[in-house]
Order: sequence, then C-alpha cells, then structure tokens
Amino acid sequence: DNDLRRCIEHIARACAQIADAVRSGRTEKIATSNTFGDEQLEIDVFADKILFDELRASGVVATASSEEVPTENRLGGASYSVAFDPLDGSSVIGTNFSVGTIFGVWPGTSLLNRTGRELVVGGCAVYGPRTTISVAIKSLPSMELILKDDKWFKTREFSTISEGKLFAPGNLRASQSHAGYNELLSYWLTNKYTLRYTGAMVPDLNQLLIKGKGVFCN
Amino acid sequence: DNDLRRCIEHIARACAQIADAVRSGRTEKIATSNTFGDEQLEIDVFADKILFDELRASGVVATASSEEVPTENRLGGASYSVAFDPLDGSSVIGTNFSVGTIFGVWPGTSLLNRTGRELVVGGCAVYGPRTTISVAIKSLPSMELILKDDKWFKTREFSTISEGKLFAPGNLRASQSHAGYNELLSYWLTNKYTLRYTGAMVPDLNQLLIKGKGVFCN
Repeated sequence: DNDLRRCIEHIARACAQIADAVRSGRTEKIATSNTFGDEQLEIDVFADKILFDELRASGVVATASSEEVPTENRLGGASYSVAFDPLDGSSVIGTNFSVGTIFGVWPGTSLLNRTGRELVVGGCAVYGPRTTISVAIKSLPSMELILKDDKWFKTREFSTISEGKLFAPGNLRASQSHAGYNELLSYWLTNKYTLRYTGAMVPDLNQLLIKGKGVFCN
Repeated sequence: DNDLRRCIEHIARACAQIADAVRSGRTEKIATSNTFGDEQLEIDVFADKILFDELRASGVVATASSEEVPTENRLGGASYSVAFDPLDGSSVIGTNFSVGTIFGVWPGTSLLNRTGRELVVGGCAVYGPRTTISVAIKSLPSMELILKDDKWFKTREFSTISEGKLFAPGNLRASQSHAGYNELLSYWLTNKYTLRYTGAMVPDLNQLLIKGKGVFCN
C-alpha cells in the first residue's frame, strides 16, 4: 500500500526532526534560561507542529489529532487518520532521561468511534542515547528501527510480550490507597521482579517491547 | 589553573565523542546483528579508548584508571590523576534509556590511597535525548552543561542535594532479604515519594543533582 508507506515515512521523518530539536534545544533559549517549565512547553508545541506538518505533506492523511490539539484536524488527504502524542515525558526531559512520541494509524477519514483492533499501524519513537522507532504494521512482523546518518535501519523484529520479571509501576502512589495495587506491588517485590521506571510512559512501554517481557501498570 | 582546565576540556571532548559513538552505533554491525551482548561490549571498549586517548592528549594527566582497565595507566603528564567509568548502563542501552560516563580528578600522580575529599573535580555525562555534563569543580559553583553544535553551554548551577520526595532504589530486591531496606522502602511508599529508576546509576544519580533533592540507595 503506497499511501500507508507514505504515511509511515512522513511520521518517521517527523520523529527524526523531533529528535534533533530535542537534542539541540533549538526552540529554546537554553543557554540563558533558568527555568525548564517554559522550555518544555515550547518543545512540546514544536514537536506537535513538526508532526502535523509532515502528516499534511504526506498527502494521504485525512485527519489527525494530538494530545496538544485533541480535535479532528483535516489535513487534505483521504486514506488514513492518525492520533499521536508528539512528546511524552516532559517531567523527565530536564533530567535528560529518554522521552518519546507515540502514534496510531487507522484507515479512513475519521478517528471517532474507532477501536484498537482497527489500527493498521501502531508505534512509538524513543529519543534517548539513540533515536529509535518501534513499529507494528498490520500483516508485517513488528520491528525496531534506529536512526543512523539520517536513515532508518532495522535492528530487530519482535512479536508478543511474554510474562517476565520486569515491572514499571506507573502509579506507585496508588499502592497507598488501593488494596489491589498494593497486593500487586507485594507480588512483584516478593517474586524479585526487576524494576525499571523512568516516569515517561513511551520509553517505559517500549522497553517491554524490546525486552519481550514484563508489565507496565498505570 | 590551566592544567586543570585542559584536563576538563579533554574529558568533555571525550564525552562528546562517546555520545556520538553511542548514537550512531559506529562501532557496531547494528543493521545485521541479532544480539546486543557483543555490541554493548564493543561500545564500552570504544568509550574507554576515547577517554584514555583524550586524557593522554591533554598532556597534563599522570595516570588514569577505568572500570574497564582498573590499573594505574601512565599517560605522560605530571599534574593530575583521573578515575572513570566510560559507559555506565550497559543493561539499559538496548532499551534506549539514558546512559552515562562518570569521572573524578585528583591532584598528583597516583590514584592510590586517595579520598573523596581530595577530589578537585567530580562529574558525569549523561547521554540521553540530550548530551549533558554535570560537574563540580573545587571552588567553583557546580553546574550542568549541554552540548549544542559541538560546543558546551551552561544551563544551570546547583549546590547541595536537599531532602525531597524522589527515590531511586538501586537494590530493590534487597527489600526481600534485608529488614532495614524493607523498612526504608515502606517509608518511601507511605510518604508517597516519586519513583524514578532507570537502572543506570549515572543518570539515576544525575537526576538528583538536577532536581536538587531525593535519595539513591544501593
């Protein structure tokens, strides 16, 4: 499907630009700024603009919606609809932990009343020491790509996530007010699960794809 | 002190090169490799070589020792001695979480029988969505620098770490066998501390410097 290919290529192009913008702090007065609050807002908005611009440029996207602009935005194409969070992890960007982009692609011209099973593409980019995209495309093996010299290279394929002793407790404080969450925490601790939790959902979920095991709990 | 300045400049230059090597996977056959075990070894060894080469090139370092080569390695200078871990976080590099370099600089020609109080420089680089160095230089304010367009820019100054509700439990499994550790974990949970734990010591410690609060427990 050429239209789907174009859509994915433009998303990947946007992710490469977001990685560069985050790294270079190009949207920020970083050398003179004392606070990181404003900066985070700026980079979020900039990432959002990059993705909308690329999706429009693809010519195949009918509508798109983001966490920043959560309405249906008509982009001129007719084949696909895309939902995304342009930059997940604002709370950890100041500490230089990995952050990411997450996106889903549906066939058709609207995002309303769609289900997860109707997805044709689901994926996320992680901006860390490397720039990677993990992507699942309907009827293809899921894979991770890495950005090298402005090109994307496949590093591995993966399938389903198995049971495994790795946990990312996304809402640990709930263990104090929710008996079930506390019981779950006790289970992870008693069974000596490995803890990995950065506080940015996209990298925390992506690690489970890469490791092929584990549990994320919000 | 011109010698100390040279030493720090060459460490920073090494960190910029390590960031680039990690990002580009230049030492790896990443597009054709199925396992990440060998790759991590290669990038560790490459980072080690970069640091030794830069310290030698500075002309001011008498001896250096790394986690990879933990002996006293004579580098031809006479003023300073440097100890470092070139690349901390091998276990999370595959999941694209932040990794780092940590280093300490002592006056004189040997690292043997030195204390932390004798340090003239302590610092770490974090390779994440950005490349940063947090550095404490005796008699100067501690600061964070960010790499932009191959130059380092100061982003902020910081001083001591205060008490604060942020925790990075570096040895969570010990809570199952050590009553004191378990008691500490209960304290963090009961008091609703924020959890941030990537599994790489350097980024996990660096976040406390940046946030100016919190506790890391090994």
